[in-house]
Amino acid sequence: MLSWIDGQDAAAVNLQNRGLAYGDGLFETIAVRGGRPSLLALHLDRLALGCQRLAIEADLTLVRNELLQFAQLLGDGVAKLILTRGDSQRGYAPVAGAQARRILQGSPLPAYPVANAEQGVRLFACQTRLAEQPLLAGLKHLNRLEQVLARAEWQDSTFAEGLMRDGQGRVIEGVYSNLFLVRDNVLLTADLSRCGVAGVMRAALLEQAALLGIPVQVRDLPFEMLEQADEVFVCNSVYGIWPVREIAALNWPAGPLTRKLQAVARTLLDT
Amino acid sequence: MLSWIDGQDAAAVNLQNRGLAYGDGLFETIAVRGGRPSLLALHLDRLALGCQRLAIEADLTLVRNELLQFAQLLGDGVAKLILTRGDSQRGYAPVAGAQARRILQGSPLPAYPVANAEQGVRLFACQTRLAEQPLLAGLKHLNRLEQVLARAEWQDSTFAEGLMRDGQGRVIEGVYSNLFLVRDNVLLTADLSRCGVAGVMRAALLEQAALLGIPVQVRDLPFEMLEQADEVFVCNSVYGIWPVREIAALNWPAGPLTRKLQAVARTLLDT
Repeated sequence: MLSWIDGQDAAAVNLQNRGLAYGDGLFETIAVRGGRPSLLALHLDRLALGCQRLAIEADLTLVRNELLQFAQLLGDGVAKLILTRGDSQRGYAPVAGAQARRILQGSPLPAYPVANAEQGVRLFACQTRLAEQPLLAGLKHLNRLEQVLARAEWQDSTFAEGLMRDGQGRVIEGVYSNLFLVRDNVLLTADLSRCGVAGVMRAALLEQAALLGIPVQVRDLPFEMLEQADEVFVCNSVYGIWPVREIAALNWPAGPLTRKLQAVARTLLDT
Repeated sequence: MLSWIDGQDAAAVNLQNRGLAYGDGLFETIAVRGGRPSLLALHLDRLALGCQRLAIEADLTLVRNELLQFAQLLGDGVAKLILTRGDSQRGYAPVAGAQARRILQGSPLPAYPVANAEQGVRLFACQTRLAEQPLLAGLKHLNRLEQVLARAEWQDSTFAEGLMRDGQGRVIEGVYSNLFLVRDNVLLTADLSRCGVAGVMRAALLEQAALLGIPVQVRDLPFEMLEQADEVFVCNSVYGIWPVREIAALNWPAGPLTRKLQAVARTLLDT
């Protein structure tokens, strides 16, 4: 598959790369359709926030331009963009003024079962808890061992995703998705200031809900709120929205607000 | 410098490597003197524990043999060993049965000021707190953004190390060292079951203290315990032991137990 480092064809990265050494970097997983990256502005916004919070120096105009060129060559697929804090010798100290290394990798669009979007999905209730680290919360950084451990908890393919909670048992997100609840026509999603990844589709849906006049609350979600939910769905910037029909002993229908936002998400990904 | 992947000369790693993608792996930083890796058995013990806890499949006999060969070629220096959960396509799910990728990198022994060991060091009091994640605590895994953020807090080279605390303010470790206190002739070091890296020199000193009849407590260390300490030192498997003479407004002498263990550490590293 197509892959670039700093704008050049490359399939391997220097062993001194700080992404490998420390997970010292950020990534974005971007759906590409007809040569165009979906939700580009939101992906770049999150990347800019990540660079700012981790003090990674990157030329984001160059990143954007390379991504647009890469997407054109890719056509249809997923572009994974990794920005790492360049290379360094042994030692945690960042090299002052180092420019971020830009890695782009193409892959085919994943072939998820159509039933995921139509009938909804079962979520595995993961035991792996998300640690609370406000300095990293919300970012899509390269330190992802919690997700690896959580994803390794189930092999049964009837679970399309896993539910992740924090140390207090609060509902946070899926392993590779964000999670929303609907209760009394209010859209609820977890506050991600202590842990979790603030997904680009989550951000897009929060924007769209505001435009559509749908009341939204971003707040702590104790597990009991799942029991009280009328609808539950997961989302990400590749598959859009999947209704959640089952987590452990709990069940929900694919309700009207889920279906409405699912159509919105599809439009966002297709345009 | 010398570097190998899976026993072959190589300077770059495949972009699909899960170490780069997710920090999905472990590492060891091993002092090599006269072609021999120091504290080899303890390094391999920690690696085995890490592989077990992260379910990374690795042939540790092969790892050991490669490391011995690599050390012979290196002569004097530091061998950094990285084990990653092989390669995979996009997605957190580990590939069943994947063998770990073995990466070895050589570098010169760091030229620390002699005064660090002789007069002792100042520690910067880092604001970055360690998150509590019992599933990863103790391991030297590749998710090291907290250390990168902590190390970026100071540029003043009169600080040789930084003090890291957990979210409750308890004293845990240095950025690249473990920390010990001495109080009333008892050796104290932080319990690392919620966060921190269980260093190989820490393990060696705990063993040696038992042999020497020095009472040891591995326990929670509220910040007040630093104020009450008679001696403080940091240690790792490259430099051995440095007395700590200053953290913020607190000062300690390089005391007798520190000096005794410093000699022990030197012997451990030289033999």
